[in-house]
This record gives sequence, structure tokens and C-alpha cells, in this order.
Amino acid sequence: MAIFEKLTHLFTATESSLASTLFKSPPFLSFTIFLLEVSSHPFEKDSNFHSQSFTPIERIFNLDHSLIDPEAETFKNGINGDVVAGFVLFFPNFSTFLGKPGFYVEDLFVRECYRRKGLGKLLLSAVASQAVKMGYGRVEWVVLDWNVNAIKFYEEMGANVLPEWRICRLTGSALEAYRDAI
Amino acid sequence: MAIFEKLTHLFTATESSLASTLFKSPPFLSFTIFLLEVSSHPFEKDSNFHSQSFTPIERIFNLDHSLIDPEAETFKNGINGDVVAGFVLFFPNFSTFLGKPGFYVEDLFVRECYRRKGLGKLLLSAVASQAVKMGYGRVEWVVLDWNVNAIKFYEEMGANVLPEWRICRLTGSALEAYRDAI
Repeated sequence: MAIFEKLTHLFTATESSLASTLFKSPPFLSFTIFLLEVSSHPFEKDSNFHSQSFTPIERIFNLDHSLIDPEAETFKNGINGDVVAGFVLFFPNFSTFLGKPGFYVEDLFVRECYRRKGLGKLLLSAVASQAVKMGYGRVEWVVLDWNVNAIKFYEEMGANVLPEWRICRLTGSALEAYRDAI
Repeated sequence: MAIFEKLTHLFTATESSLASTLFKSPPFLSFTIFLLEVSSHPFEKDSNFHSQSFTPIERIFNLDHSLIDPEAETFKNGINGDVVAGFVLFFPNFSTFLGKPGFYVEDLFVRECYRRKGLGKLLLSAVASQAVKMGYGRVEWVVLDWNVNAIKFYEEMGANVLPEWRICRLTGSALEAYRDAI
């Protein structure tokens, strides 16, 4: 994703930094990931993947051509050999205008060989559906203004792109300067 | 705040909608508010306001002129008569680029008669300081691109304004359409 967004110079995540900061709370209350896994066979019923708060979503896709994943070995999950094809990472946000929570989608990603099959739409729809079920008021995310294909895709899904707002970011040494400011 | 931002047409929060969605978790793990209270006398020591995770920040301001708050009665807290002068509402976000959490500041507001005294800076600095103490990587918020005074204020505090990102928002009937989409 960092390569696709031309932002590798900002990428510093490691396996251990992700492992130590994610997967700490039940789904939806904090940082949450829907993992998109694919298999050429029906998924095994695995009770480990079920929880009180979420039932995995299964879909069958009939492809015109067989699909080659050149990195399938790298992206096999360690449990049953299903292959990770993408993910969406989201977490609750809050609008004082609405007086209710929503979801903010930090990342939506589908690996290249799985694109143009509706899987990105499936991931984002799953977040939107979950938001509605929880009575939340908004699903929000950001897009780079030069990414016209993404903007078109998002607008077709019903989203508005807000032209006036700009993100402000305090990070690095500018943030560190506040350690003893208070 | 809705009036100041010319966004009253979007404002639907009520006292009960806020009461039912906020104040559900310990500070910093989810939606969190720093409330700015003022008093012309030293604050009473009140152990109710102390918790393991946060000690209230106290500052003395010496003003050149006495300050008249025409709405002081409306904004008195119900406990000791201190007056609410502003607030900042924030919650954790997550950067997969950094592989760590940050804080997103949803609202920063100081009531008009208390402005231009450094109180907004105090509120935002308190969030930044808390982020550093927790090892978080960023503090982020948004600003309207026509609000040049706010942009100048934020840049002086060390923030960068990101020109390329645009917010996408799925809300109202467009969001409701996803209720049974999955």
C-alpha cells in the first residue's frame, strides 16, 4: 500500500510494532481489521473465527479465468492455508455535530492480482453495514486528490468528497517538543 | 462551535445523544474530553477529578482587565460553580505507516469571551503532551481551508497542513443503504 500511494518514505511499521499495538480489544470498540481471505475451495467451518460480535462474511466468486497469485506462499495464513488478499482497518470516531460515533477507515487494500473483482467494495460495504447495524452516523476516510480512480469508486459507493477540509498533523520532533510542555 | 463554523445545518446533537455515547470508557482508550474550567478563586482540591490515568492541569492567568462572562450562569458546572470555558474532544486513531496509535482531535473550542489568552493552545498542548507520554506517533485534526487564522495558529504550534488529502464521507441515506448490503 505504501508503494502504491508513493509514500514509502513515511513507512516505518514493523511486524512487532503492529503486533504490540493491534488486536488488544474486542472488535469495533477500538482498532479493528476485516481480513479478506480467499480459497479455491469452500472455507472450513472454524469456530475460532466466530465471536459474539461478528460472524465472518462468506462470498462465492465465479471467475472467467483462473487466477494466479505469484505471492500466495507469502500471504498464506498460518492456520488453514487460506490466502490473505486484502484488508480494511477501521476504528470508531465521534461527531459532536451528530452526537454519535462513526467509523473511520484508515486503510483499505486489495492485493494487485485480486483487484477489479468487487473485493474492495465488499470490504468497504462490510464496514458501512456494521456502522448501520450499530446505529453509527458516518463512515469516513481520506483519499489523495490525484487518485481520480479511487474518488470515482468512492462516489459510486455513495460517499461525498469534502472539498474544504484539510488535515493538520503534528508528528516527529514537532510532537516530541510537547513532552514536557504541560 | 456550529455557529462559528457556519455548519448549524449539520448540527443534530442533543444532551441525551451526547450522554448516551460519551463517558463510557476510561480516559484515552476511546472518546476523551479535556474540559477547560475557569474560576476567579483557586480551585478546590477535589479527589473526584483525579484518576489513575490523568491528573488535572492547573494554570494561573493574570489578566490586565477583569473578564465579564455574560453566560457564566449557563456554563457553571453543577458541582462547585467553576465555569466551563472550552473543551477539546479527542480519541485514538491508528497509522499503519507508523505502526502505532495517535490521537485525532475532533473538536477544539474556547468560548468567545475567553479567547486570545492562550487557552486553546493550552488545550491542544495537553493532548499533544499526553500523546508523547503514551508513545503515540501523531496528533491530527482538520481545519477548513478558509479559516486562515486557525491555520496560522496550528502551524505556529508545529503542525503541518496536508494539501493533498480529501475527506470522504458516507452518511445519511447513502450510509443507511448498506444496512442489508452484507
